[in-house]
Amino acid sequence: MLPVELIEYENASAEVRSVFDDIMATRKVDKVNNFWKALANHPVTLRRTWESVKQVMAPGALNPLTKELIYIAVSVTNNCDYCIHSHTKAAQKAGLTEEAFGELLAVIGMASETNRLANGYQIPLDSASQ
Amino acid sequence: MLPVELIEYENASAEVRSVFDDIMATRKVDKVNNFWKALANHPVTLRRTWESVKQVMAPGALNPLTKELIYIAVSVTNNCDYCIHSHTKAAQKAGLTEEAFGELLAVIGMASETNRLANGYQIPLDSASQ
Amino acid sequence: MLPVELIEYENASAEVRSVFDDIMATRKVDKVNNFWKALANHPVTLRRTWESVKQVMAPGALNPLTKELIYIAVSVTNNCDYCIHSHTKAAQKAGLTEEAFGELLAVIGMASETNRLANGYQIPLDSASQ
Amino acid sequence: MLPVELIEYENASAEVRSVFDDIMATRKVDKVNNFWKALANHPVTLRRTWESVKQVMAPGALNPLTKELIYIAVSVTNNCDYCIHSHTKAAQKAGLTEEAFGELLAVIGMASETNRLANGYQIPLDSASQ
Amino acid sequence: MLPVELIEYENASAEVRSVFDDIMATRKVDKVNNFWKALANHPVTLRRTWESVKQVMAPGALNPLTKELIYIAVSVTNNCDYCIHSHTKAAQKAGLTEEAFGELLAVIGMASETNRLANGYQIPLDSASQ
Amino acid sequence: MLPVELIEYENASAEVRSVFDDIMATRKVDKVNNFWKALANHPVTLRRTWESVKQVMAPGALNPLTKELIYIAVSVTNNCDYCIHSHTKAAQKAGLTEEAFGELLAVIGMASETNRLANGYQIPLDSASQ
Repeated sequence: MLPVELIEYENASAEVRSVFDDIMATRKVDKVNNFWKALANHPVTLRRTWESVKQVMAPGALNPLTKELIYIAVSVTNNCDYCIHSHTKAAQKAGLTEEAFGELLAVIGMASETNRLANGYQIPLDSASQ
Repeated sequence: MLPVELIEYENASAEVRSVFDDIMATRKVDKVNNFWKALANHPVTLRRTWESVKQVMAPGALNPLTKELIYIAVSVTNNCDYCIHSHTKAAQKAGLTEEAFGELLAVIGMASETNRLANGYQIPLDSASQ
Repeated sequence: MLPVELIEYENASAEVRSVFDDIMATRKVDKVNNFWKALANHPVTLRRTWESVKQVMAPGALNPLTKELIYIAVSVTNNCDYCIHSHTKAAQKAGLTEEAFGELLAVIGMASETNRLANGYQIPLDSASQ
Repeated sequence: MLPVELIEYENASAEVRSVFDDIMATRKVDKVNNFWKALANHPVTLRRTWESVKQVMAPGALNPLTKELIYIAVSVTNNCDYCIHSHTKAAQKAGLTEEAFGELLAVIGMASETNRLANGYQIPLDSASQ
Repeated sequence: MLPVELIEYENASAEVRSVFDDIMATRKVDKVNNFWKALANHPVTLRRTWESVKQVMAPGALNPLTKELIYIAVSVTNNCDYCIHSHTKAAQKAGLTEEAFGELLAVIGMASETNRLANGYQIPLDSASQ
Repeated sequence: MLPVELIEYENASAEVRSVFDDIMATRKVDKVNNFWKALANHPVTLRRTWESVKQVMAPGALNPLTKELIYIAVSVTNNCDYCIHSHTKAAQKAGLTEEAFGELLAVIGMASETNRLANGYQIPLDSASQ
């Protein structure tokens, strides 16, 4: 089980290949990341996760870059090194600049600090009128 | 110490009042949130935190709404109920729509799921060329 | 199961009472906190947890107040409201002042901020000589 | 963006150098840690973070060693490997002994256990008189 | 946005009702939990989340009770009070006894303690042969 | 202190050896994991932790495999790489199959997603009758 086997396209079942094909077509790339190769060990999780990510990350009221910034913010807070790397790369492709990356991390750090202060002081919610 | 005393303007020291004044002037509001009233118990933390928040949340390469979305993403992941409430209200003032709020939470949820999958499978970083 | 039943001394088994007695004797108090009344639903956990807490929190190389500060730091970071309250009260009994409480929360907040910055930037360990 | 560029003194701007100089002078060391070299990619974050750390970690009602222990407790709970290493080294310089380090980790572990028990059982706050 | 509007069946769109209908039919209940009424504010998230939960929680190599125990373990560790309550109730329906609930929380607490010890000591992975 | 010294049997004190002996006898193995070799730096923590783990992980209302699954769920959520590895290996010995491992991670991921949704929407508890 661990270390996880990364399943390459040439060794994948037809079921897995059809998901890999859709990832590559949707993202206009010619290979898939290790994340998908690992999930391929459990094809039902692979398909469900991909269908969900495809839906959630599609442009909508929020644009793709904004969604990537949110993804990075969650990944840093959850400490997922793999996800920090892969979504920072995705954000770069979507237009993230060095300056914006610096601001992103500054906001993440500041929020973490005030989150702890608010919880440490057990601050009551503001009344609705504030 | 707990429950925390919320220090109101009329009972605040000159030092605390000058920070409260700057918060109200900067934000164009006529009162401060409970967060600041609680921090007023430790004036040096009050001033430092406000100066930092003012700098970090100012418009830059990222606009104020995007910064609020990142703040909410971190606050949900850290489970700060107070911060979720106050920054959702701030985001609303900055233009957050119901649809965008729904997408924000969907991305937060999806990132949390894939963060755990990536860590659970202990997926190795992609090579630089991917 | 939830809401948890708080088991009062008068309704407790002899096994539970003997743990309650030891808590009250060790702490020189005449009742036990809700934490212990809740654990009394699973007496083996009650006894094990009390024996462990008694050992870990006893004075040693670190004094009792310092241990309470560490306990609060962990509890704030883990978001345990119950624990923040009970250990802040315990720290107060052990001598925590308002000023020290303010500094404690300031350090907790600052550490949380720099933790996220270090993870967000994926900063490599310093070499041994630094 | 990732891997982060560590900015060395000799390649740093005057703005960054002035912060590095203050860090080295304040800490009486002749180089800065990777943390600061990484933050130097966003000079405004570098300066703000350093000014904050300098204020928060200065001796006050809590002594420097106690502050380092709190920092380590938060860093372990947040899973920041870099911070665990650098603050354990700082605590050692401030006088942390092997025995105290063992007690520190024991308290961190115990608090994490009881935090989960209290949240798992959803234990209500003790009344004020307890 | 907050407080969240809970959308009742009688006020729901046809799209939302069809998901509510499937939840009630699958679970053999005659109303849906607040969780689904809240997600109904973003129907695409409602449908996707329900389809995913339905797939993931169906009996498989792991039985439904075991899956609920895992769900509770994650929810306690993530501090989701709502989820702790609803999944403990679901586990009860699936056969969880008081004794097993006590053991579940004991394992969760113990794992949290040793997780922090392992991270605090930065313990290297065992070699493959261990 | 860091990097932690792993204390081997041949260099261990009699006190540490007696714990190592009990671990090996209880688990029917001929060496102990790095976790115990690291804890041996603080013998009182070594003994207490081992006695607790031995009690908590013994067969009871929940069987050993189920307990290992819960342990893994907590370890993934807390991001303890060491613990994920060692308890996945322990679960394998207790009968975990590849398919069950895939389902375990799917449940962990799903719970993490809905935990964030429930907290993000700040969903109120269901009334008791639901």
